[in-house]
Formats: sequence, structure tokens, C-alpha cells
Amino acid sequence: MRLRRKPEAKKILSEHPLVFTATEENKSEFQGRWRELFPEPAQPLHVELGTGKGQFLAKTSGLHPEINWIGVERIEEPLLMAVRKGEATKNPNLRYIWADVQWLDEIFAPGEVDRFYLHFSDPWPKKRHTKRRLTYRTFLERYEKLLAPGGDLILKTDSVSLFDFSLEEFQEAGWETIELSRDLHHSPYASANITTEYEDKFVSRGMPIHYVRVRPGRKGSADPGE
Amino acid sequence: MRLRRKPEAKKILSEHPLVFTATEENKSEFQGRWRELFPEPAQPLHVELGTGKGQFLAKTSGLHPEINWIGVERIEEPLLMAVRKGEATKNPNLRYIWADVQWLDEIFAPGEVDRFYLHFSDPWPKKRHTKRRLTYRTFLERYEKLLAPGGDLILKTDSVSLFDFSLEEFQEAGWETIELSRDLHHSPYASANITTEYEDKFVSRGMPIHYVRVRPGRKGSADPGE
Repeated sequence: MRLRRKPEAKKILSEHPLVFTATEENKSEFQGRWRELFPEPAQPLHVELGTGKGQFLAKTSGLHPEINWIGVERIEEPLLMAVRKGEATKNPNLRYIWADVQWLDEIFAPGEVDRFYLHFSDPWPKKRHTKRRLTYRTFLERYEKLLAPGGDLILKTDSVSLFDFSLEEFQEAGWETIELSRDLHHSPYASANITTEYEDKFVSRGMPIHYVRVRPGRKGSADPGE
Repeated sequence: MRLRRKPEAKKILSEHPLVFTATEENKSEFQGRWRELFPEPAQPLHVELGTGKGQFLAKTSGLHPEINWIGVERIEEPLLMAVRKGEATKNPNLRYIWADVQWLDEIFAPGEVDRFYLHFSDPWPKKRHTKRRLTYRTFLERYEKLLAPGGDLILKTDSVSLFDFSLEEFQEAGWETIELSRDLHHSPYASANITTEYEDKFVSRGMPIHYVRVRPGRKGSADPGE
């Protein structure tokens, strides 16, 4: 589905109290201070990259009030839908950033984020677009820098090619796989899973959802002794 | 724990109706015909490599009567304990092979096995013993040959080094990870999990159990398009 362009979306977003509109000039305004925007600044900060229409964030912020949630989205029409859903919840632990993920390490400070979510990111299947995939090595370097010690990243996708590519990139970068399922909705993880709009659509068509939780750093050591 | 040698174990095992004693001469006697030994020959065949004292097999054969189960063990004292537990269940879908796993592809025929289990295999931590690890590439080649189409392998271990080594070997061999958890007993997989004697011991000490289900063959394709 292609969303109809809504000229008023830009104006609404740029004035909305739940939204930070990142620009070339101001994008680092809250770097290292994101938690201060929330009523409970000591809570962990979880960031969804590519929030889309926002179903996941609206639901999870209610189910997990012990976490502060931020959604990052570049395209204004879905972001406006996400913000509408979010404000309807009245959950105080929910904010949005209107920005391109390319700016991520200027928006957040090193160690500021406890978990990233990549939900049904564009698989960019053509080889010449490899570097645009949000699990390409240059993105992993950013995430690693921004994650707090013990922080992790969750990836969900319907794309087998993006999933396999991501596993290779994680491995190459020395990231560790903590949990994995190639059929999330027929795994015991299904009951605690919170779906996105895309996910509901794929699942209703019987397509398996691929899920992995990874964390940077502890390079696999095959041969500890000798 | 080191088991006391019991001289009578050899004799009991070699005459036991539930046990096939593989020797250099007869090891291929049932190759391709293992299912015929069971009352329900059409059922899938699951093989535990290194059955130890046999708790897993005794339990799972009762909980899963729709599967034919074989345990392979090289050392006679634990095997005798396993067989005692097995015969006490009176489950008809349970057999044991007294053999070294080195003979695996002379004992079974290509495509004969639907699932292998590696439960708390010796991690062989020293580098010079790498080739003895049951997930070393030469073993993976054997498993791949013996597994039926769609067949898979489950590994459980307390050893992080064996786990990480195994993941690398699986990846190198083009095997696909289907499910993974680095803390099985604090994952939603825990409720359906059937423990081994070792596992109970480690879990009671609070040590995380590492779990993975993999299958051969579908080499991860990072770049399907161009």
C-alpha cells in the first residue's frame, strides 16, 4: 500500500508534543538526555527503528510501563498514524523521533539505548542496495556504539534473505545470538510477542516470521584452552 | 563422577534384547532396516548420540510414542543404567546401540534418521582435540548424509565454548539455525523440554543451558536479487 501524501502531516508532526523533529541543525539536541523527557528517567530506553504505523509501540508501551519507548520513523504519513495511536493510549512512556536512521549516532549518545528493534525493515533485495539494509555492518557499528553494556537488538522479518544476510553480518561483527526462531508464531515465544501491522498481515497469510535477539561484543571463542 | 567399572556390564549388554552391540564385523547388520525393529516401522526415527545414563530417552519415549527412539552410547556402565531405565518403562519404541559414534555412517543408512540429539557432549576444550568434538565438520558431514530430507539436529550443552564452536561449524557447513536459546530454562521452550541427568545438575546450580536446532543444506543466500 502506498500512503497518500498528506501535506498537513509535516506541520502536525513538527508541532506535536510527543514528536522530536530532527533537522540537520538540531538533531543532537537531546543526545544523552533522552531519558529526561520521560516521567521515569531511570527506566531502560528501548528504540524501534522504522516505527511505521506504530501498532507495536502503542501496544508495548502499555504492556511494559517499566520501559521508556521511542519510535524513529523517516516518512511522515505513517509516523503521523503512529503518533495518533500513541497519543490515544495516553501512555507517558512513549515518544517519537521524525528522522532518518542515518542520523542515529548524532541523535543518541554512546551507551544511551538499552534495546533496538528492527521490525520488518526494508530487505533491499538487490545486491547494489546491500549497504542500505539496516543490518549492514556500518549500521551494526552504530548500534554497538549506542547500546548500553548488556544491551541488545531484536530483529523480526518475513524476509528470509534479509534474515540470512543479517545473521551473517551479526556473526562477522562478533555479535552473539541469544534467541532465534524461524517460525515465531509457531514457537513458544508467540504468546509474549507483540505484533506490528505488517506482521499481522504476513501471519494471516501463513508466512513464517523470523525472529532473532542478538547482542554485540562477546566474540565466539571456539578454542578457549590449549 | 567416574563410574565404577562393572565387568558384568559387557555380558549383560551383549545379551540384552533392547541392545544392539556393534562390532567391527556386524556393525552394518541393521543399516537401512532400523525401523523394522519397532512395532510401528512407519514412525520417524530419532537418535540420541551419547545417551549416557538414559534419563532423556526413558522419558521422551513415553511422552512421544509417535516416534521411534534409539540411544547410542560407547561406554558400557552408563549404557547399562540407560537400558535398565528404558526396560522399566516397557515402552515399545525404544532401542539402544552399544557403539562408538565414529561408526555412525556404517550403522545407519543415508536418509535413515529424522533427528539427531547431541546432549551435553564432551566439549573437548583443548585445541588439539578439536576433531573429537561431535560438531566438528567431519561429524556434520556424516549427520547430513544420514538425515532424511527435512531432518534436523538438536544440540544442548552447558559449554559456551562448545556451543560457539558448534554454531561456527554449522554456519561453515551451510546449516540453517531454526531455533536457538542461550538460556533454555528461562525461555518459553522450558515447558516442553525433557532434561538429561547432566542437565538437571547444571540447572540446579543455576547454569544456563544452551540450545539450538539446526538443519543441513539450505545455504543462507544473502543476495537473491541483482
